[in-house]
Amino acid sequence: MSATSPAGPSASTVAAIREKALLLSAYSMMSTTAAGSGHPTSCMSAAELAAGVFFYAMKFDPKNPNSPDGDRFVLSKGHAAPLLYAALAEAGVFPVSRIMTLRQFSSELEGHPTPRIPGVDAATGSLGQGLSVGVGLALGARLDKSRTRVYVMMGDGEMAEGQVWEAAEFAGHYKIENLTVIADVNALGQSEPTMYQHDMEIYRRKFEAEGFAAEVIDGHDVAAVLTALDRAKATKGRPQAIIARTIKGHGASFAAGKNGWHGKPFSKDQLAEALKEIGVAPNIPADPGKSYARTSLPEPPDFPAPAAPDYEEGKQLATREAYGYALKRLGAVNPHIVAMSGDVKNSTFSEIFGDAYPDRFFQGYIAEQNIVSAGVGLAARGKVPFLDSFACFLSRAYDQVRMAAISRANINLCGSHCGISIGEDGPSQMALEDIAAFRAVYSSTVFYPSDAVSTERLTETMARRSGINYLRTSRPKTPILYKLDEKFPVPGFKVLRQSPHDRVTVIGAGVTLHESLKAAEQLKAAGIAIRVIDLYCVKPLDGKALADQIGATGGRLVTVEDHWPEGGIGEAVITALAQVGVAPSRFRLLAVTRMPHSGKPDELLDAFGISARDIAASARDIAASVRDIA
Amino acid sequence: MSATSPAGPSASTVAAIREKALLLSAYSMMSTTAAGSGHPTSCMSAAELAAGVFFYAMKFDPKNPNSPDGDRFVLSKGHAAPLLYAALAEAGVFPVSRIMTLRQFSSELEGHPTPRIPGVDAATGSLGQGLSVGVGLALGARLDKSRTRVYVMMGDGEMAEGQVWEAAEFAGHYKIENLTVIADVNALGQSEPTMYQHDMEIYRRKFEAEGFAAEVIDGHDVAAVLTALDRAKATKGRPQAIIARTIKGHGASFAAGKNGWHGKPFSKDQLAEALKEIGVAPNIPADPGKSYARTSLPEPPDFPAPAAPDYEEGKQLATREAYGYALKRLGAVNPHIVAMSGDVKNSTFSEIFGDAYPDRFFQGYIAEQNIVSAGVGLAARGKVPFLDSFACFLSRAYDQVRMAAISRANINLCGSHCGISIGEDGPSQMALEDIAAFRAVYSSTVFYPSDAVSTERLTETMARRSGINYLRTSRPKTPILYKLDEKFPVPGFKVLRQSPHDRVTVIGAGVTLHESLKAAEQLKAAGIAIRVIDLYCVKPLDGKALADQIGATGGRLVTVEDHWPEGGIGEAVITALAQVGVAPSRFRLLAVTRMPHSGKPDELLDAFGISARDIAASARDIAASVRDIA
Repeated sequence: MSATSPAGPSASTVAAIREKALLLSAYSMMSTTAAGSGHPTSCMSAAELAAGVFFYAMKFDPKNPNSPDGDRFVLSKGHAAPLLYAALAEAGVFPVSRIMTLRQFSSELEGHPTPRIPGVDAATGSLGQGLSVGVGLALGARLDKSRTRVYVMMGDGEMAEGQVWEAAEFAGHYKIENLTVIADVNALGQSEPTMYQHDMEIYRRKFEAEGFAAEVIDGHDVAAVLTALDRAKATKGRPQAIIARTIKGHGASFAAGKNGWHGKPFSKDQLAEALKEIGVAPNIPADPGKSYARTSLPEPPDFPAPAAPDYEEGKQLATREAYGYALKRLGAVNPHIVAMSGDVKNSTFSEIFGDAYPDRFFQGYIAEQNIVSAGVGLAARGKVPFLDSFACFLSRAYDQVRMAAISRANINLCGSHCGISIGEDGPSQMALEDIAAFRAVYSSTVFYPSDAVSTERLTETMARRSGINYLRTSRPKTPILYKLDEKFPVPGFKVLRQSPHDRVTVIGAGVTLHESLKAAEQLKAAGIAIRVIDLYCVKPLDGKALADQIGATGGRLVTVEDHWPEGGIGEAVITALAQVGVAPSRFRLLAVTRMPHSGKPDELLDAFGISARDIAASARDIAASVRDIA
Repeated sequence: MSATSPAGPSASTVAAIREKALLLSAYSMMSTTAAGSGHPTSCMSAAELAAGVFFYAMKFDPKNPNSPDGDRFVLSKGHAAPLLYAALAEAGVFPVSRIMTLRQFSSELEGHPTPRIPGVDAATGSLGQGLSVGVGLALGARLDKSRTRVYVMMGDGEMAEGQVWEAAEFAGHYKIENLTVIADVNALGQSEPTMYQHDMEIYRRKFEAEGFAAEVIDGHDVAAVLTALDRAKATKGRPQAIIARTIKGHGASFAAGKNGWHGKPFSKDQLAEALKEIGVAPNIPADPGKSYARTSLPEPPDFPAPAAPDYEEGKQLATREAYGYALKRLGAVNPHIVAMSGDVKNSTFSEIFGDAYPDRFFQGYIAEQNIVSAGVGLAARGKVPFLDSFACFLSRAYDQVRMAAISRANINLCGSHCGISIGEDGPSQMALEDIAAFRAVYSSTVFYPSDAVSTERLTETMARRSGINYLRTSRPKTPILYKLDEKFPVPGFKVLRQSPHDRVTVIGAGVTLHESLKAAEQLKAAGIAIRVIDLYCVKPLDGKALADQIGATGGRLVTVEDHWPEGGIGEAVITALAQVGVAPSRFRLLAVTRMPHSGKPDELLDAFGISARDIAASARDIAASVRDIA
């Protein structure tokens, strides 16, 4: 808002910021007392820090608070939301009266920040994720050659989260100089004192070990806060950490520095006492009830059609490899696409993109949590992130994916090496829960391609589609099934084998689709016709369209998946049918039901009951009671 | 195996260990070449380190390699499994011939370590989890007043994972002195050089910042390795880190220190060349094919019945609070129970246990990943861990739960504050995917109690039950429904309202069960009888028993859950019915389908369609076509 002075803040500036801090503290107390819940003491420890950032260091347009031209602020300690709202209100983003609607059903000012609130880029409240979001915002700004700075306010409690140090090492390694951490070390967690309490030097050593310029200050000394913010801004070549010793509940002596006050609003009497103590008595007018909720959130930018691949039906290519080629072709026509990999780019094949567009590819190292949350930050800046690891290791970032959905982020995740078909590496490398996990994410789309052409088209669809898009790719090479001009709508599926005599519908995807096609051949030789469906889109599903297919085979259905039975293809299909009032007449759900182990892929498909042999046996079993009408 | 010498290792000892290292390196190369896959170069960097640990520092009985009396070894860099198997074979745990069955379908020597292998306590292969497992093993040993030491071998690539630093800070904070990290810093990840390559001082600073005694050595200098192991053993009051500079592929000059060799076995010619270079040519006899797989894995110890609670039907108590009382009563009769909380013990109420048994309660701080993997280590030592956080934050540890299942660990997780019924805190604190996530875990049991009595009994069942047990508790107070002598079998459910005239079955749990009971009252007043089922056990399900209930109401079914629709109660029930050949005649799945926000719990239940009003409307809707038989 105001300019920084190279000579250090003047006494009048310090006094003005001190006034702002008292006001933010008062607003935080008042809004939480009005709400009857919330975390006033967690706001009060950081009031001077927030005032310094918002009213001294940061440059942003309160009329357009999410503009990428402005500096960004991420409140990683999301429970201090009232402090953020107070700062936004005081900055003019919305009227101060609005803060008194905190936590109400009708208010956009939620208990923890979400992007419904103007000025907020990403949801916080699951601790330890904000620095990664800030890393993504800052990296995006660097890509845009923008001078935007990113401020991330963290609490000391959340610095126990490993993700904080994933983000810190990444920021240090990539020398992200437009990133400043403000650590509010108030020494008290929710349930008791934090691990290191006020041992400030431990935090300094930790940040310095990660390559940060770190300094320890008294977080209630406004001059020190402003000087540290100036110094951070002047630092080149590395991120900065301002590690502030603070007192939780600062300003209200009955609560200050005392355990047991976490997440507790003050009573009206306590509020009066605290306001008297800090010497501020704001008169907040009644709120007229106008919502300031953001009504439009970023959508992925449009882009021209990419070049076509030259795949030939019947040739072999693993879907994981096809993903890399697809991403490269998309990169040529969509400059917003960026990719990050968890040190597996040569297995997920994102290296094909990275080799073509090294400026837009980031080695994320083995730190999946940071990769996903950094993707949220990149997306908030209008990038189209594609993030990858083995599908099983994306489970490492499940909370981050959950928060990405609350952030209304548009991010794309590719998980390779799904299921037992990876073979010899064994169960630690086999994703068998990823469909269940990603289906149960708000705004998610779950794709599971079975050949290179569908992989190519679905990867393009991801780049155009909002929300959390997940692509499940497979390790083994599989034959190309589709012509280059085939379309893959969402929702949708493909019927690959059909005849008027089909007695059973078999639904598979990935390796189990290819096993289903083999089973169809085997059964055909035995005079049994089956319908085979490629369920390339597992979420959303068109229950009616599926019901039509299954109805055409007398309601007899086999689903088969390289996944646990829970939450996978079988459950998704059965539930989609039930929701349109249809049930199979006979049903077999084939999935992995015992803990797998190492072995050759084909041995494992057989041993764990999802091979062509098992599909044929199940189809035969449920078709047996039917007269052969062929 | 052999004693350490206070005067430092003798020249003959050094020479003997050097010979062992060459042998382990040779075995690792030979077994991976025979398998045609695997990670020989990741073994070769750590051969001297492994030889030093196994044949100099560690004390364990090769005849009883999982005995808690012996020192423990955790291979966190699980892809170096062939090195571990070589060491176990050379130590006499199984014949050396066995290593040549590596990665075969019929062999217990899997691509990455699992507890099927004698001497292995926990599965590794998802990187960055081993130190937490080691923390749990070491903490368990401390509880047992055992002098057991725990050695954890890590790679440098995996030290990018935040969980490593969660575990390190925990070990430092709790001064776990019987824990030694061996960091194999070979500077090469899977896809390219690691973040810090051979900048050894960064690792030293990081471990020292966490309170470790850390030293940097040349990992191929056997005398240095042994001296460092001696020094670690002599260190009191803090954990130790031996940070070893190593060369990936050490010994085979065509591969040593070169990028692009990760996860690639040598050809037969390359193997011959490498063996010639290191000057070892082991003659390994043909393996007779006898399996050495562990056939029995630890089960939770039995214990006498705990004291009964004094709950009265109709009184109000939140299930989250009932959990705390239950755990305390169990703690009195089962000394193996330990608990750890992610700084939310005053919200999950594990503090009730902690206050009663402070020696068996651990503040895990805000580091859910470490808490879960440490629980795996504790369980491997025969403890019965109860681990808690808000249910939404357990998603932070989903990969760790997945690996716990592969570890065949017996751990208990309590996730509180499920669903939108938490109210004002908003969506970041609402678990809406936890049922889906936990159902899709091998060996899991998913409990969702609706009152204090069932919570009490289900918590006891968890302590007796193997596998991954999950308890979903709720924030709001709810009335006690059951008499104290009620039994809650697994699988099972309770029919709370029934009559011969029931027209619809409604299945709920937690807050939605109480809403269902309210709906039943409303409908009764309108002359419509419904059956209400408490699905306290969501996994496993008895499809036949459910089908009988639903059949008795004409097949009309409403399921209602404070969860996303995917993978939750509705899908579980519909699928269980389909698998016994039954489908509802009419069906409504009520769940949260839009992103929730802050508000009062009752407002939210109404706004998001899972309140008594919505249940009654759905039941009325599907009952409407039926003639009133009452």
